[in-house]
Amino acid sequence: MIQFDRQIIQSDDTFALSTDTLFLAYFARVRRRSKQKIVDFCSGNGALPLLLSSWTAAPIFGVEIQEDLADMSRRSVQLNGLGEQIQIITANIRVIENYFQRESMDLITCNPPYFKVYPDSWINPNDKKALARHELTMTLEDIFAKAFYLLKDRGRLCVVHRPERLTELIVNGSKYHLVPKRIRLVYPKPNKSSNMVLIDFIKNGKEKGLDILPPLYVYQEDGSYSLEVQGYLDGTCR
Amino acid sequence: MIQFDRQIIQSDDTFALSTDTLFLAYFARVRRRSKQKIVDFCSGNGALPLLLSSWTAAPIFGVEIQEDLADMSRRSVQLNGLGEQIQIITANIRVIENYFQRESMDLITCNPPYFKVYPDSWINPNDKKALARHELTMTLEDIFAKAFYLLKDRGRLCVVHRPERLTELIVNGSKYHLVPKRIRLVYPKPNKSSNMVLIDFIKNGKEKGLDILPPLYVYQEDGSYSLEVQGYLDGTCR
Repeated sequence: MIQFDRQIIQSDDTFALSTDTLFLAYFARVRRRSKQKIVDFCSGNGALPLLLSSWTAAPIFGVEIQEDLADMSRRSVQLNGLGEQIQIITANIRVIENYFQRESMDLITCNPPYFKVYPDSWINPNDKKALARHELTMTLEDIFAKAFYLLKDRGRLCVVHRPERLTELIVNGSKYHLVPKRIRLVYPKPNKSSNMVLIDFIKNGKEKGLDILPPLYVYQEDGSYSLEVQGYLDGTCR
Repeated sequence: MIQFDRQIIQSDDTFALSTDTLFLAYFARVRRRSKQKIVDFCSGNGALPLLLSSWTAAPIFGVEIQEDLADMSRRSVQLNGLGEQIQIITANIRVIENYFQRESMDLITCNPPYFKVYPDSWINPNDKKALARHELTMTLEDIFAKAFYLLKDRGRLCVVHRPERLTELIVNGSKYHLVPKRIRLVYPKPNKSSNMVLIDFIKNGKEKGLDILPPLYVYQEDGSYSLEVQGYLDGTCR
């Protein structure tokens, strides 16, 4: 049971709060008092803006293409009385220029669809979970192109993704002047390969000084949560 | 005390066998009986070819620009009676075309100079350690350009480097069709940032299927070697 002072509306047809979103929220390291402006790409049911809102007073925008998810998100925002801080926009990030000015944002978070669509992929485009999982309406490159457009100089893009997409993440970052400054690998447990990567890119960042942080283990050998993840879940760790 | 059945000639002016070379040798996973041909770029005192020779019968070439290091390496090869298996070439990898045919190699290993030379770097070009540490005679990109030239289709390039060069490693790999297939981060101990990265690139490899292996810790919390590294050092682990 996750202990947060935010209530998040979910449905069985869509993703609940995932560890991916939880880890991304912690990884983004937002400051409490801040004039920064934050956008969450591929915002789903709004879990990430809701989590961040308990740590920062900064305005947060969530962008989600699926109307029912965006609607669920707006209801959570109302339920928590956060209408002044969080605004949810139903849109494809590909047309983000229609909603925000160039270089207007300080931080972008993104927990995108993880899976590439190959010519031989069989995916039902009417399946809502498929839309959240597969790059049907946007690609990994779109994240970087749109982040470059939206971020101020030295603004940050924090992404969670699958390790097998690491090459594309770094190559696209390089293409759009988004330089990795912090990387953290998540491992399901000790002695297993990584199944999640968190990356913090800085727009126009210097080439020097990439920090690859200590690994984040989800479970200990005995199957219980690691101390760090337990701290995330019960809210004692930040 | 490292227990190997190879004697490696060293001098105080140059690098002894480093953990970097030791980890790279294990990471490269050579097979005992093999028709493969192996080249070690930036071979120094030949520690890597000497280590590999105890695990494989494949012919190994070491390429080193510094004559005194190459000479030390040749003496170690003679001392160990490995003149049939290991050949040391004194050369800059930039002119590797003068020594080997295109697409003639199966595996390249490389423990290169780690530090980029910036306009404000003050480096004595006559300092032998500086040559081994700084990119004075070659750059990170040269490794990939020459690996692309030398490797057969699906041949492998295994590199050890500093994590802060990870972006350049991946971007240059992408430029020269060398696709990361295995990555392992080395950490000095738990809860510290990584200080070393091992990457296995495959020439013309498929985009899918990058494995980020479990972390390799050098020391345990109590300051003793980790079990894995202790196994490497006493030769019980392979």
